[in-house]
Amino acid sequence: MKLRDLAAQLACRLEGDGDIDIIRVAGIQQAQPGDVTFLANSKYEPELARTRASAVILREGSIAAPCAMLRTTDPYLAFARAVGIFAPAWRPAAGVHPKADVSSDAHLDPSVSIGAFVSVGDGVVIGKRTVVFPNVTIGAGVQIGADCVIHSNVSLRERVVIGDRVILQNGVVIGSDGYGFVRRGDGTHEKIPQVAGVVIEDDVELGANTTVDRPAVGETRIRCGTKIDNLVQIAHGVTVGRNVLLAAQVGIAGSTEIEDDVVFGGQVGVSGHLTIGRGSLAVAKSGITNSMEPGAMVGGYPAIDLKTWRKSSVLVKRLPELRLRVNELEARLAELVSEAGSSKDTSR
Amino acid sequence: MKLRDLAAQLACRLEGDGDIDIIRVAGIQQAQPGDVTFLANSKYEPELARTRASAVILREGSIAAPCAMLRTTDPYLAFARAVGIFAPAWRPAAGVHPKADVSSDAHLDPSVSIGAFVSVGDGVVIGKRTVVFPNVTIGAGVQIGADCVIHSNVSLRERVVIGDRVILQNGVVIGSDGYGFVRRGDGTHEKIPQVAGVVIEDDVELGANTTVDRPAVGETRIRCGTKIDNLVQIAHGVTVGRNVLLAAQVGIAGSTEIEDDVVFGGQVGVSGHLTIGRGSLAVAKSGITNSMEPGAMVGGYPAIDLKTWRKSSVLVKRLPELRLRVNELEARLAELVSEAGSSKDTSR
Amino acid sequence: MKLRDLAAQLACRLEGDGDIDIIRVAGIQQAQPGDVTFLANSKYEPELARTRASAVILREGSIAAPCAMLRTTDPYLAFARAVGIFAPAWRPAAGVHPKADVSSDAHLDPSVSIGAFVSVGDGVVIGKRTVVFPNVTIGAGVQIGADCVIHSNVSLRERVVIGDRVILQNGVVIGSDGYGFVRRGDGTHEKIPQVAGVVIEDDVELGANTTVDRPAVGETRIRCGTKIDNLVQIAHGVTVGRNVLLAAQVGIAGSTEIEDDVVFGGQVGVSGHLTIGRGSLAVAKSGITNSMEPGAMVGGYPAIDLKTWRKSSVLVKRLPELRLRVNELEARLAELVSEAGSSKDTSR
Repeated sequence: MKLRDLAAQLACRLEGDGDIDIIRVAGIQQAQPGDVTFLANSKYEPELARTRASAVILREGSIAAPCAMLRTTDPYLAFARAVGIFAPAWRPAAGVHPKADVSSDAHLDPSVSIGAFVSVGDGVVIGKRTVVFPNVTIGAGVQIGADCVIHSNVSLRERVVIGDRVILQNGVVIGSDGYGFVRRGDGTHEKIPQVAGVVIEDDVELGANTTVDRPAVGETRIRCGTKIDNLVQIAHGVTVGRNVLLAAQVGIAGSTEIEDDVVFGGQVGVSGHLTIGRGSLAVAKSGITNSMEPGAMVGGYPAIDLKTWRKSSVLVKRLPELRLRVNELEARLAELVSEAGSSKDTSR
Repeated sequence: MKLRDLAAQLACRLEGDGDIDIIRVAGIQQAQPGDVTFLANSKYEPELARTRASAVILREGSIAAPCAMLRTTDPYLAFARAVGIFAPAWRPAAGVHPKADVSSDAHLDPSVSIGAFVSVGDGVVIGKRTVVFPNVTIGAGVQIGADCVIHSNVSLRERVVIGDRVILQNGVVIGSDGYGFVRRGDGTHEKIPQVAGVVIEDDVELGANTTVDRPAVGETRIRCGTKIDNLVQIAHGVTVGRNVLLAAQVGIAGSTEIEDDVVFGGQVGVSGHLTIGRGSLAVAKSGITNSMEPGAMVGGYPAIDLKTWRKSSVLVKRLPELRLRVNELEARLAELVSEAGSSKDTSR
Repeated sequence: MKLRDLAAQLACRLEGDGDIDIIRVAGIQQAQPGDVTFLANSKYEPELARTRASAVILREGSIAAPCAMLRTTDPYLAFARAVGIFAPAWRPAAGVHPKADVSSDAHLDPSVSIGAFVSVGDGVVIGKRTVVFPNVTIGAGVQIGADCVIHSNVSLRERVVIGDRVILQNGVVIGSDGYGFVRRGDGTHEKIPQVAGVVIEDDVELGANTTVDRPAVGETRIRCGTKIDNLVQIAHGVTVGRNVLLAAQVGIAGSTEIEDDVVFGGQVGVSGHLTIGRGSLAVAKSGITNSMEPGAMVGGYPAIDLKTWRKSSVLVKRLPELRLRVNELEARLAELVSEAGSSKDTSR
């Protein structure tokens, strides 16, 4: 593709030779002649001078590259779209694979693609153009919207509801039984039947091997536009709001409500029955034990205000020094007291 | 169902109109007319006055609700049983699905249900009424007891032994190779063949995508009545006692023994070769690096006595203040020393 | 097997009766007559006197056992090999199971074994003697080398490349979409198509339910000889060097480079875009927020030098005491100042 045409498609302003042929999108360090690359993170600015790329997507008004430039107000977004332009547009053909097992009572749009060894239960409904890869199990009564992509080895348990344009990476489990038990007098535990529903709204993406449990009563719900990374645990009765970002290995305990636009780093843990206010943020590995106000930013465990945590966690490593200073203070004070005593004696 | 009949089935004392029709169990905030709800956690007491439920399950002697009441000494247990009464009693029909693959050398009770795309290896034995959902793989020589439920996409590796009434949520892996390697002189690692057994005793439940490894020698064992949440790692050679509760994303390193009645919060990690004493407890995210006495309660990393940890972790966030106080002490002491010096001078 | 023959096969020096029949390898505590056991960890030395084993593998020059001994410079390695000698040498027969689904366009060596319900996509290449267990999904264009073992319920996404002698435990996902999104002006997120490759080099082992994401551009790569435990997250664009060891539930964020010979304990988390220097080490639960020098050893979160962290973390639990000492210093200093004042007064 001519750089000129790429610029037009990405709505970027071209600086340089529009006749260059672009064949690929690449990272700034790996880029070769024929590649377009991008600079969105200032950390990589020093790489710009030595890039071998034929063209760079750059922020309007930022530094110049030693090659052709595509200028835009949002270089990361332009990069994302450039990747899409060059990506192989591949999708399996519509239809049910002869080695799938689809209930005669299921309702699949003819445009749906069902792979080998997919089991589709009674009463399942699947919307237009949704693709289901091999070895997926879809339980009885599940509803799936249009334009979803369900990768291999996903399990959707009975009566789970999935919106439109949902992407489920491989190994995702939705609707497994919540971890709900009552302790009996003899120390054994009685299972609380986990029979209520799970709803995954439109435009949600769940990462590989992530698990979303169903509750005994009420529902577990993940709202529109939320993106969740791999190996995340969403417990029974949790509500996750719109456009939330949860990085890998996060765990949310039962009945907690995550409001819209929340961002959690990796390995964050949240206790049950809390409310995490809109637009709040927790850095990686935070352990959140109390509800958070909208817009709050926290770190550490138990999680506290992020600025306080940053200061405190620096001081933790200086604790040996602080202890030495206290030791010395005690020694000098004792000395002073003893001197003061003798000084008083002499002054008498 | 009439409230009167529900009260009888739950062995609760009825206060109010026994003729009310109950159609569902619901959480206190979501309940509608026709629903029975419950109050077990005092945190939700303020909700009681405004519930729209037709009836509430309540502790004997506790506050009153503005609707009919079912009084009991254990409202959470009564709630659990009420959920079971209203839950859809659904199970797949007995028999082997024509699209399953069962070795001619396997021994399945005729009451067993085997779903589509289930692979059952040579010498496998499965007891009465056990249900195996689609896309499960059961390796050669596996033994499974009666009344188990094995959800889709579970992997049971060769020779694993499963007791009665075991529930395996979707994606569980049992009997994968333990992480056992010997470093060679050249820095590469030689695999120690992991060929010994795994035993899951009666009434155990394992959460979605939880993994239980097999060891090289000895065995990995999870004893009766233990309930384990999602995404938990049980390493090779670990023993987990009876009626243990491990919340989501816990990791237990190799050869550690967890005794009976232990409770771990989410994301706890335990080092290898330790003994975690009976009835001990670790709060979420604890990192346990030493064996624990029976009944011990710990928190933090490295995990310490829970009360000490609670006090210390509060002080961590006050470290900037503590440092300022030490700075000031040093300044004032220096001043005092200098004053004392001049005072001594003047007194001479 | 005669102990004499075992000694020869393990290249150990025999002390005692070479005519003893050995039937099994066992742990030192579980060993019975007829078993050979080993002592590699000095922690278990007290068990040696009371072992019931018929023979023990021991370090040259270390203490003696009350039974026959196999002396060697590396008892753990000899143990590993002994396990292999007694392990059942079991592998499925070569050939494609009639209930598998293999694209007519795939190239499988005749010695390959493909289990039931395995889906093999277009253009897949699989090398000699590789074994694929049931319910595995292998996407279009995947390349797999020789002598690999791919356990049940693994997902290999399109175009993933796997070397020789790679072992993938059950439920592993390779090539799932990286967690890459661009925030739009309205707070929603646009997916960056994750279409680049993943390469798993020779002799790598990945633990059960571990996930390895693909990036938008560049590649994700795990180099030769690296061994990764269960439930580990390797994000998009990460490079993991040779002979690296990552314990269970570790998470590596996007674009980070882990150099050769690095060792991470369980539940370690690493931020994105870092370089973790060759031969460095992080103890369990470390949270690494900065690049690490070769050979560095760290602990804690944010991770700091291991020795400093060990000292500091001990002091954290003594913070209540430290605060009391500061309280007392302040009180005594105030008293001293007041005394000094009155002393000065009286001296006037």
